[in-house]
Amino acid sequence: MTKQLVFGHQSPDTDAVVAAKAFSYLQNKLGFDTEAVALGSLSEETKFVLDYFNEPEPRIIETAKNEVESVMLVDHNEFQQSVSDIADLVVTDVVDHHRIANFTTNMPLNFRSEAVGCSSTVIWKMFNENGIEIPANIAGLMMSAIISDTLLFKSPTTTPVDVEATKALSKISNTDYNVYGLDMLKAGTNLSSKTEEE
Amino acid sequence: MTKQLVFGHQSPDTDAVVAAKAFSYLQNKLGFDTEAVALGSLSEETKFVLDYFNEPEPRIIETAKNEVESVMLVDHNEFQQSVSDIADLVVTDVVDHHRIANFTTNMPLNFRSEAVGCSSTVIWKMFNENGIEIPANIAGLMMSAIISDTLLFKSPTTTPVDVEATKALSKISNTDYNVYGLDMLKAGTNLSSKTEEE
Ligand SMILES: [Mn+2]
Ligand SMILES: [Mn+2]
Ligand SMILES: [Mn+2]
Ligand SMILES: [Mn+2]
Repeated sequence: MTKQLVFGHQSPDTDAVVAAKAFSYLQNKLGFDTEAVALGSLSEETKFVLDYFNEPEPRIIETAKNEVESVMLVDHNEFQQSVSDIADLVVTDVVDHHRIANFTTNMPLNFRSEAVGCSSTVIWKMFNENGIEIPANIAGLMMSAIISDTLLFKSPTTTPVDVEATKALSKISNTDYNVYGLDMLKAGTNLSSKTEEE
Repeated sequence: MTKQLVFGHQSPDTDAVVAAKAFSYLQNKLGFDTEAVALGSLSEETKFVLDYFNEPEPRIIETAKNEVESVMLVDHNEFQQSVSDIADLVVTDVVDHHRIANFTTNMPLNFRSEAVGCSSTVIWKMFNENGIEIPANIAGLMMSAIISDTLLFKSPTTTPVDVEATKALSKISNTDYNVYGLDMLKAGTNLSSKTEEE
């Protein structure tokens, strides 16, 4: 099996980083050989999430064609938001929750986008559909992404399935999503590292 | 719930017609109000299929905006293969198994494309994922579409899941897929209606 890279969009938010990790884990369980990477430096919020669930930071790449022939995209599909040499690569899989634009392939692929609040919600469904168990720390990451994208269900993009996924992932990760979620969103505002003038 | 139209590509093949019927049935069971229509006259093969499973021919439309605001596409995504006024409509759902090109939306949507032999295979998975029972005649239609698109598994686009879906649908429709499939493909060659010179 040829190795593939999995990544979210440039200027990655928490969903872009952890959906790549979760989808890579799922694909590897399904028999593929993938590595989750990121297309830019991580936010304070994402660092808090990875640290909390003892997950290493992903490698950051600028181009992919120097390493692999084909890639999987999460949390984006528009080529201008993707890796710089996306036009030279084969895209085999996409998981997303955004509008579709500026995306084209020569060959059929697996493209799954749903009108929900977070890519990690779609990936949660895919774990269930494939009967693959979600490890506690991956569940914690996915729960964090949904809290981040939906601002703890306050965003108008929130759907009932995002809430359902969060509750299920909260159980698996044994983490109170309300208490943890507020801490996480607070970490994202990065108060501690700001000067008083800010 | 506002009514929506569901249709496959222009110059419809069997999958384009029956995937629209199957997906419309599924969406209606999920609470939406949809009607399956076709974008052109039916092939001899498709007429044989609908006749065999006692299913009426779909209404043929030229434009959609005069009837509805939003539509669901099956068995295609490229706008030039779709209804003539596709650019003026909101696409809420796509189920497909082709490359993605010339497709764009302003809003998030449900887009499900898989690298399998037939759209009806993807729809079979979606029935199962949603726990919706497939009626015997709809199962017969979907089985016919897979046999048509894969030429009874002889096409190189055939995947194991197409075979699995065919066997499951064969059971539900109580139809031997080998015997029926050969009859159906023969009907598609339309020998009976051709003159000797052809
Ligand atoms: Mn994002
Ligand atoms: Mn997202
Ligand atoms: Mn077709
Ligand atoms: Mn087809």
